[in-house]
Amino acid sequence: MIIDCHGHYTTVPAAHTSWRKQQLAAWEAGEATPAYPVISDDEIRESIEGSQLRLMRERGVDRTIFSPRASAMAHHEGDEGVSRRWAQACNDLIHRVTRLYPDSFAGVCQLPQSPGVPIANSIGELRRCVEELGFVGCNLNPDPSGGNWTSAPLTDRSWYPFYEAMVELDVPAMVHVSAVTNKNFHATGSHYLNADTTAFMQFLQADLVKDFPGLRLVIPHGGGAVPYHWGRFRGLADMLDRPPLEEGVMGNVFFDTCVYHQPGINLLFEVIDIDNLLFGSEMVGAVRGIDPRTGHYFDDTRRYVEALGLASDDREKVFELNARRVYPRLDR
Amino acid sequence: MIIDCHGHYTTVPAAHTSWRKQQLAAWEAGEATPAYPVISDDEIRESIEGSQLRLMRERGVDRTIFSPRASAMAHHEGDEGVSRRWAQACNDLIHRVTRLYPDSFAGVCQLPQSPGVPIANSIGELRRCVEELGFVGCNLNPDPSGGNWTSAPLTDRSWYPFYEAMVELDVPAMVHVSAVTNKNFHATGSHYLNADTTAFMQFLQADLVKDFPGLRLVIPHGGGAVPYHWGRFRGLADMLDRPPLEEGVMGNVFFDTCVYHQPGINLLFEVIDIDNLLFGSEMVGAVRGIDPRTGHYFDDTRRYVEALGLASDDREKVFELNARRVYPRLDR
Repeated sequence: MIIDCHGHYTTVPAAHTSWRKQQLAAWEAGEATPAYPVISDDEIRESIEGSQLRLMRERGVDRTIFSPRASAMAHHEGDEGVSRRWAQACNDLIHRVTRLYPDSFAGVCQLPQSPGVPIANSIGELRRCVEELGFVGCNLNPDPSGGNWTSAPLTDRSWYPFYEAMVELDVPAMVHVSAVTNKNFHATGSHYLNADTTAFMQFLQADLVKDFPGLRLVIPHGGGAVPYHWGRFRGLADMLDRPPLEEGVMGNVFFDTCVYHQPGINLLFEVIDIDNLLFGSEMVGAVRGIDPRTGHYFDDTRRYVEALGLASDDREKVFELNARRVYPRLDR
Repeated sequence: MIIDCHGHYTTVPAAHTSWRKQQLAAWEAGEATPAYPVISDDEIRESIEGSQLRLMRERGVDRTIFSPRASAMAHHEGDEGVSRRWAQACNDLIHRVTRLYPDSFAGVCQLPQSPGVPIANSIGELRRCVEELGFVGCNLNPDPSGGNWTSAPLTDRSWYPFYEAMVELDVPAMVHVSAVTNKNFHATGSHYLNADTTAFMQFLQADLVKDFPGLRLVIPHGGGAVPYHWGRFRGLADMLDRPPLEEGVMGNVFFDTCVYHQPGINLLFEVIDIDNLLFGSEMVGAVRGIDPRTGHYFDDTRRYVEALGLASDDREKVFELNARRVYPRLDR
């Protein structure tokens, strides 16, 4: 069985996206939020079968851990109420997908984060999604300001109430930023990768994983720049008198395989322990084209992983068992 | 001959660093800047021979392209006048090193950048360093705000006057940020790498290299996250209707070899054309320790490059000829 730990619902029915625009316009105008539109099951099926599910079938992916479109979370837009209503709407839509295709999708929720708002205020929506909707994890935005990085680092105690809830509910978080407002950054080209590297370095510098032995954090996009600069990070851990990476952060931190060429995947598997790697494709997502050098989709990451010729035990770990260990609610 | 394109003077005489503190304190107090201290040639020799030069000799590096300590540029501190006087002092000190050891060091200058100040105001110091002090290049900070990224992207026309001067003087810039004020970021662990990735994506998105065919830009730290995610960037170029990387930005953009483990260097050389790679170590710099796995310094990057077993033509390119091509004033 092959589980993709990193899929986003980027092909939502148009009515959902239109409502978001109306919601923001209403907030700006100081008016009441319009009613959420009626979206039929057929519209959802249509939005899934021709894209996500078709690609999963073509690529032989059995199940996707599925979350709302990351760039559309846009926690910097509106206020806390806007963010809460938007997160609920996005999560409810994911829930409908998981109900329509229970074998193919497991839900991961967007949080109602908002700049300057305590993360504790996101616990209610996490709990609703996990306990009532059967979700298996959440996407945690380390920078709800949309590129201004106005929050404290993820290792600051202000985040701890949320980690307590994660541990209690036995769900992991994927650390995932959203759209960026600063023109210096391109969302999928630099902001995402920068956030991955930033989060890892924060984990390296502090005692978070010591304080929460049961906490599990997935850093997407192959860990940003980290595996490529693994020697740099090992050396920094040494210089900063932190535990060796393998004995410290890597007990709780996992990388996905969203790296879109063979040499990158080769490096990832050479450098990072197999127990820390979860198959992922970020599909349908950041890069949608076909690589002229291979004739295959850039984000068809299964091909790169298969080309490694892993031993069957290792192959099973990266394609299935690690995901079940990091997201144990997959098996409930 | 082996040329290291990326060395910083991180072991300056204490009087230089003390003066900087006095300068900033005087500025804050609204007082006159104290006189720059007298530093003897012997003090400079002592600061160089026991560290930079000793390590160069131990590692068989013949010449270092040498610039002021990057994290101490701190363009966000003080104002334009403070930054100008500090850049001059740092560059004059580098100049003295290059006069004392003309065979071992070539100078690269710090610029008097300051947030919100036009980059054109840095042309004078660039010109002084190149024309009067014999420097071969400059370090250009894409974010003089120290992590707030308040400047326009490097591809914005506001930067063009400086590029015109670079082309006229026939010198490249290494794109290099400095200290960071935001607690989310660690200077050498995330801010530097993030800036490298950010700059590359900016170059990918715009027509800068088309507008300045003679411009040469070095992205340090092995190109940040870029080579590891080369497929992602190739795919993004395709999605954004930009030229293929090899036909576009890679005509003008170069990466150094500051990647501190063998798998990372292997990937860099597998993915990036040999003509775009310049040997560098970032020494004495970000990571100063010895790797317990190899018994050698993490930043002894020559070992990793030598272990590739390059053909002699390629070896000569990465260790010497590419540096001479990118920094032609080395041969004047």
